Amino acid sequence: MRVTVLGAGSWGTTVAALMCRRDHEVLLWARNPDVAAEVDEQRSNEAYLPGARLPARLRATADLERASRHAELLVVGVPTGAFREALELTRPHLAPWIPVVSLSKGLERNTHLRMTEVIKEVLPGRPAAALTGPNLAREILAGQAAASVIATEDLTVAAALQRELARGVFRVYTHHDVVGCEIGGALKNVIAIATGMAQGLGVGDNTRSAVMSRGLAELTTLAVAMGGEATTLAGLAGMGDLVATCMSPQSRNRHVGEQLGLGRSLDEILGEMRMVAEGVKTASTVVELADHHGLDMPIARTIHDVVTGRIRASEAYRGLTRAVPAGHELDPG
Amino acid sequence: MRVTVLGAGSWGTTVAALMCRRDHEVLLWARNPDVAAEVDEQRSNEAYLPGARLPARLRATADLERASRHAELLVVGVPTGAFREALELTRPHLAPWIPVVSLSKGLERNTHLRMTEVIKEVLPGRPAAALTGPNLAREILAGQAAASVIATEDLTVAAALQRELARGVFRVYTHHDVVGCEIGGALKNVIAIATGMAQGLGVGDNTRSAVMSRGLAELTTLAVAMGGEATTLAGLAGMGDLVATCMSPQSRNRHVGEQLGLGRSLDEILGEMRMVAEGVKTASTVVELADHHGLDMPIARTIHDVVTGRIRASEAYRGLTRAVPAGHELDPG
Repeated sequence: MRVTVLGAGSWGTTVAALMCRRDHEVLLWARNPDVAAEVDEQRSNEAYLPGARLPARLRATADLERASRHAELLVVGVPTGAFREALELTRPHLAPWIPVVSLSKGLERNTHLRMTEVIKEVLPGRPAAALTGPNLAREILAGQAAASVIATEDLTVAAALQRELARGVFRVYTHHDVVGCEIGGALKNVIAIATGMAQGLGVGDNTRSAVMSRGLAELTTLAVAMGGEATTLAGLAGMGDLVATCMSPQSRNRHVGEQLGLGRSLDEILGEMRMVAEGVKTASTVVELADHHGLDMPIARTIHDVVTGRIRASEAYRGLTRAVPAGHELDPG
Repeated sequence: MRVTVLGAGSWGTTVAALMCRRDHEVLLWARNPDVAAEVDEQRSNEAYLPGARLPARLRATADLERASRHAELLVVGVPTGAFREALELTRPHLAPWIPVVSLSKGLERNTHLRMTEVIKEVLPGRPAAALTGPNLAREILAGQAAASVIATEDLTVAAALQRELARGVFRVYTHHDVVGCEIGGALKNVIAIATGMAQGLGVGDNTRSAVMSRGLAELTTLAVAMGGEATTLAGLAGMGDLVATCMSPQSRNRHVGEQLGLGRSLDEILGEMRMVAEGVKTASTVVELADHHGLDMPIARTIHDVVTGRIRASEAYRGLTRAVPAGHELDPG
C-alpha cells in the first residue's frame, strides 16, 4: 500500500518509519525542503529526532502535490494550526475514497473542531480516524513497546487501519468513541502543564497525583458533555496518554509547566523550544469549551490564568492546594 | 474528641499526628512498647518516619485496653494480616456506637474481605469507613498538600468524619462507594509492582503508562464485578492512588517491582525491607478473585507469576509487550 504521511515532526516521522517497515511504500511530506532532503538522502531528521537512523526505504518530499497523488492511505501529523490548510492543499490531488488518519492532538483554534471533524469538513466522504494514546515518539522509534488506539466510528474500518498501523511491539487497539479519544489526546496537555508546574514548584507526589486525577475528572466531564464516553477517558487515550505525558522528561508540555513552576516566563520558555507545546494554546480552548457547556473546570481555568500571564505558577498552586472544604468526590467543580 | 489510632507505622503515626493538630486528644497504640515510649517521650518514630518531629500533644501507648477505652473515634492502621486480631482484642473495651475508620489497604488473606467488612464482622453495629487515596505519609507529615477520600455508605457519617479528618491542606472528599474505594486502594499495589518492574527493566514510559492504564482497566472490571462503580476507580481512590504509588520513589511496592526488574529475588528484596509491601500478598488475592468472578486479568496474573517465582520479571515483560494482535480497547482481557 502507498502511504503518505504529512508532517515531518517527531511523531509524523516516527509513524512514517514504523509503517515503512511493514513493506508499505511510505512517502513523508515535510514543509521544509531541507528536512525533506535530509530524510530522503541522509536517513535522519536531526531537528526532531536527533541521533535517530530512519529506514532506507522511507522517501520524503516537500512537494505536496506529489505526496497527495501518492496516497492510498493518508496520515496527517502536522500541528493543529496548520492542519486545515494542509488538507485543503492536498484535496485537489487526493483520491476520493481513501481513509485519512489524524496523528495531531489538539482542537482547531477558533472552531474548536476535533481533527477528524476538520478532515470531514475539508475531505468529505472519506473515513476519518484518530491514532492516539501514550506514544512518546523516540521510544517507539528505538523499538520499545507501546500501546496505541485507532478510533473511528466504523469498527470494520478501524480493524483494517489497525492491521496497517500495528507493527511488532507497537500494539494498536481499536476504539469506536472518536470524540472521547480525540478529547483525551487534545486536552490532556493542559493537565500535563499543571503537573509539570507541580514538579517545578516541588509540591510533592501526592499533589501531582491529585491534580492528575482531578484534572482527568474535569476532562472526562467535558468529553461526556461533548458526546464522548467516560470509560474512554479512563483508558489509553485518556489516562494512559496523560500519565505518559506527565511522567516523561521528553514531554514538551510537562517541560513548559516545569519551567513555569521554576518561575520563568512563558515567552522565555517558548523562545527556547523548537517544537510546539500544544497545551499552551489548548488551555484557552478548554476554557471556551467549559464556558460553552456551563462547566466549572477549576484546574483548567487556573492553568489558563498562568499561561496568559494573569497569575504566577506559585499563586496557581496556592489556589489549587488551598484549605477550602472538599465536597463529595463525584460532585462537579 | 478522644481519638485512638491503632498501629504506629508510617501512615498510622501520620494520621495520628494530623488529627492531634485539630485539638483532638489523640492516643496512638503501638504493638512495640519501645515505639510507644519513643513516640510518647521523644516525639519521634525513627523506624517508620526517620527525622520527623511529632506533635507534643500526641500520646502513645502499647496498652491496647487503655487505647480502646480512650476512643470516641477509632482509626485502624495496622497491616491487613493483623487487622482482625487487633479489632478482636479491642472489642471488649470499646464503646458500642463509635465509628471505625480503616487506614489499611489490602484484603484479608483467606476470606478476601475488605477491611470495612472485617470491621462490620468483628465490631457490628458501628459505622465502618475507609480513608484512602494518594497519600504518601512523609509528604503529609511535612505539611505538603494532599487529597484523600473518606468512604462510607451513609453520607451524613462521611461528612462528619470528613470534618474530623481534614486539616489545612490535607483535603478530604466524601465518597459513597466503599467497595470501589477499598478495591482501588487494596489492589493498586499489584499494578505498582508491575510498573516498578517496567522501571527496573528500562522498558520506557510508553509501556509504563500502558501497563498502568490497562492494569487499572483490569482492576475496574474486578471492582465492578464485586459491586463497585467504574467512576470511583477513575478517581482519587483508584487512578490517583495508583499514579502516586507508581511515581513516588517512596513507594514500597514500586520498589519491590523495580528490584525484581533489576533481576533480584523476592526473598532478597523483602529481607532488606522493614515495612510490609502489601502488593506481594495482594497478587495472590487478585488472582483468586479473578478466578472466582471468571475474569481474565492478564497483568495481575503475570505479576502473580513473578512474585511466586514461576517466571522472571524479564520474561513477564516479554509477555506483556509481546506482539500479539490487540483487540478493541474495551473488550475484556
